[in-house]
Amino acid sequence: MKKYLITGVGGFVGRYFWEYLTAHENDFCVCGLDIAPDAPWQDERFSYSQVNLLEAAALREIIVSFAPDYIVHLASLSSVGQSWKVPAGCFSNNTGIFLALAEAVRAECPAARILSVGSSEEYGNYPLEAMPLREEYALKPGNPYAVARVAQEMLSKLYAEGYGLNVMMTRSFNHIGPRQRDVFVVPSFVKQLVQIKKSGGKGTMRVGNIEVVRDFLDVRDVIDAYYRILTRGVPGEVYNVCSGQGIKLRTLIETVAKILEIEPAIEVDPALVRPTENMCIIGSCEKLKAELGWAQAFSFEKTLNDMIEFWEKN
Amino acid sequence: MKKYLITGVGGFVGRYFWEYLTAHENDFCVCGLDIAPDAPWQDERFSYSQVNLLEAAALREIIVSFAPDYIVHLASLSSVGQSWKVPAGCFSNNTGIFLALAEAVRAECPAARILSVGSSEEYGNYPLEAMPLREEYALKPGNPYAVARVAQEMLSKLYAEGYGLNVMMTRSFNHIGPRQRDVFVVPSFVKQLVQIKKSGGKGTMRVGNIEVVRDFLDVRDVIDAYYRILTRGVPGEVYNVCSGQGIKLRTLIETVAKILEIEPAIEVDPALVRPTENMCIIGSCEKLKAELGWAQAFSFEKTLNDMIEFWEKN
Repeated sequence: MKKYLITGVGGFVGRYFWEYLTAHENDFCVCGLDIAPDAPWQDERFSYSQVNLLEAAALREIIVSFAPDYIVHLASLSSVGQSWKVPAGCFSNNTGIFLALAEAVRAECPAARILSVGSSEEYGNYPLEAMPLREEYALKPGNPYAVARVAQEMLSKLYAEGYGLNVMMTRSFNHIGPRQRDVFVVPSFVKQLVQIKKSGGKGTMRVGNIEVVRDFLDVRDVIDAYYRILTRGVPGEVYNVCSGQGIKLRTLIETVAKILEIEPAIEVDPALVRPTENMCIIGSCEKLKAELGWAQAFSFEKTLNDMIEFWEKN
Repeated sequence: MKKYLITGVGGFVGRYFWEYLTAHENDFCVCGLDIAPDAPWQDERFSYSQVNLLEAAALREIIVSFAPDYIVHLASLSSVGQSWKVPAGCFSNNTGIFLALAEAVRAECPAARILSVGSSEEYGNYPLEAMPLREEYALKPGNPYAVARVAQEMLSKLYAEGYGLNVMMTRSFNHIGPRQRDVFVVPSFVKQLVQIKKSGGKGTMRVGNIEVVRDFLDVRDVIDAYYRILTRGVPGEVYNVCSGQGIKLRTLIETVAKILEIEPAIEVDPALVRPTENMCIIGSCEKLKAELGWAQAFSFEKTLNDMIEFWEKN
């Protein structure tokens, strides 16, 4: 039986990873870890522990008793805005939980394969002509969250090369899908547009800068990439997880509006425009495709349709 | 009166910084911080506090009451070997003390100028033809200590650019001089050679790989660079602190032996040869020279003579 440990299991991505396993694995079990008291779901193949990953001794006990084959490290404080407000807290939490996990694995189950999730934020600001961002580019992180991700990735590489752990790293770009909370920009837009549709198709969208271009990937394609990297990736290597396509937020809004057959008014709220935002972030997924046979299965329109369906029900 | 706060004041560099101030400043005082209970020296212009810099509240009280104009952040766990043994402890200490300091300054004395000391270790392994290492090179840290230094530098840049703090960064190469402890390679060599001289000029040096090339700078030239960067450097900028010259360890031994007029036997001890060591590390000091008018004042021979004199007395 394959044993998976998933940190931050209660989040958007954790649930999809679980669902991927239920669809693709025959004989497996999952130990999920998160900070919330209650298990996010019930299943005989799923056990849950509430733990603060900074408590190294508690984490180590779990690692010893569960003895995972695979570890998916999703837990993090992932708000860029919050990292500007509490830089020391965000940085020390995100690097500290990674180090507590890595040290527990080094001591107790060094053969386990670990997926260390990073972020496109690690690249920082690159000009349009540098797109798509490739793994070999220099990292120029522009916020405290991003610096913590760079440190985690650099430490991961050392754990692989210096201690021989089987740790693989990602730089994950924007992922979207049903069930994503509306504090994020895309579900917030979809939710607003669904509400406009419900109230007769007339209404106004309040938006920030919608001329920015981002690389959106369906969370289910993200999980397929994570699974491939976790099970077949090369230790010490980093993989972009992205679509390779840039989509302007304005185009995203227009696509959803077209599906919903509405024509909303769009109002730019200067309070929502972030002054130092990168205008364009597009990743290259060539390494993921070439080395791990990954391919995007969910088209942008399919994802948006599924998100619309989700918000129509909720 | 100019007020200087120096962290890690009890170390090799801290004492030289103090001596530089006594020689170059008319009206100044220093608040020194370190982990040891006793002040490293006594002077009416010098106050000392024993503090663990991870104790953010205690540090903040000191910052509030002293209200420094200049902060020289020398404190760190700086052993690469130790960082491989205790990676989480070393990383979280070095980044944690920097963040505690930066957060205290941001809250309490945001106009202070801060020198954030980094290391040539941040560059990692570059081939011979890439020498000398320049500030714009990509960072490829090869040990946990080096990753912590990279994180500290990246965070420093954000504190400068995102919060407007006056923080300047260094990448400091090997520094040497009298009073350096013989756990480091150069004072260890000088001490051994002085002992051989004392016992009649015949004897054997036990060495590791002495074909490696390093960039050595007299600690007094380091301090002159630090003072210039601290007082006139550009916030958010990083400066190599180095001689620009590569010296083979074998040449260093031969130079000291020649000064002492001895001909020691040299025995390579495989236990002292580090397997993954960079063969050649040389920095470029062009930025420091061009932008801050720095120049090396102590020749390599002068430094070695002073070190010999120190070990002859001790």
